[in-house]
Amino acid sequence: MASVFTKIIDGIIPSYKIAEDDRFYAFLDINPLTVGHTLVIPKQETDYIFDLEEDLYADLHRFSHKIAQAIKKVTNCKRVGVAVIGFEVPHAHVHLIPMNHMAEMNFANPKLKLKPEEFEAIAEKIRQAL
Amino acid sequence: MASVFTKIIDGIIPSYKIAEDDRFYAFLDINPLTVGHTLVIPKQETDYIFDLEEDLYADLHRFSHKIAQAIKKVTNCKRVGVAVIGFEVPHAHVHLIPMNHMAEMNFANPKLKLKPEEFEAIAEKIRQAL
Repeated sequence: MASVFTKIIDGIIPSYKIAEDDRFYAFLDINPLTVGHTLVIPKQETDYIFDLEEDLYADLHRFSHKIAQAIKKVTNCKRVGVAVIGFEVPHAHVHLIPMNHMAEMNFANPKLKLKPEEFEAIAEKIRQAL
Repeated sequence: MASVFTKIIDGIIPSYKIAEDDRFYAFLDINPLTVGHTLVIPKQETDYIFDLEEDLYADLHRFSHKIAQAIKKVTNCKRVGVAVIGFEVPHAHVHLIPMNHMAEMNFANPKLKLKPEEFEAIAEKIRQAL
């Protein structure tokens, strides 16, 4: 069965899309730690990120680089943090998290509740900054 | 002044080295979250990781890929997690963290205290697995 992320890529499940090319897809995390928290995924459905072939793994991060720059510009955060954990959705994903304090990268923290229009507004700003 | 990581690269400060090439250096985190927790750094001293030029950023992760495979083999963890936070040492670094549970990637967790011979033993095993 297709992963929830493959369904997002295929447009079966909607997402606040940030960017896409032939191999990668980026969209807002629907349970964000901070405003602008984005997920970057390979279109190739692979559970464990280090099972991605080395070039594809490197290029996933290369694709994330542009997006991280846009997120920082838009959110005015101190830094964009990077995290790959992989115990939730079985489709490799890179978290890009706008951060102002170290404690913000804690996946046990309560997630923000944003309205659809708030998600769409931040997604649009990040897309414009790309 | 050279960062503490540049001093490690230059051998002025000792480290439990895992791997090195002309652009990157990997060594055990001296305050590990789990046994085998490794830092991968660019030799180019840059504070914020996304200030690294896109190719160098991608290649840093490419270099990490080999090391993550070796860490998983040696520690028998479920996954190697990846994190970049960047509020501590002002020299970009990628954390590679052997994980069996999601909660292990929490930088507020107490750090492990290992003896020098324990650090050296795990470093040697990871080097052998490369």
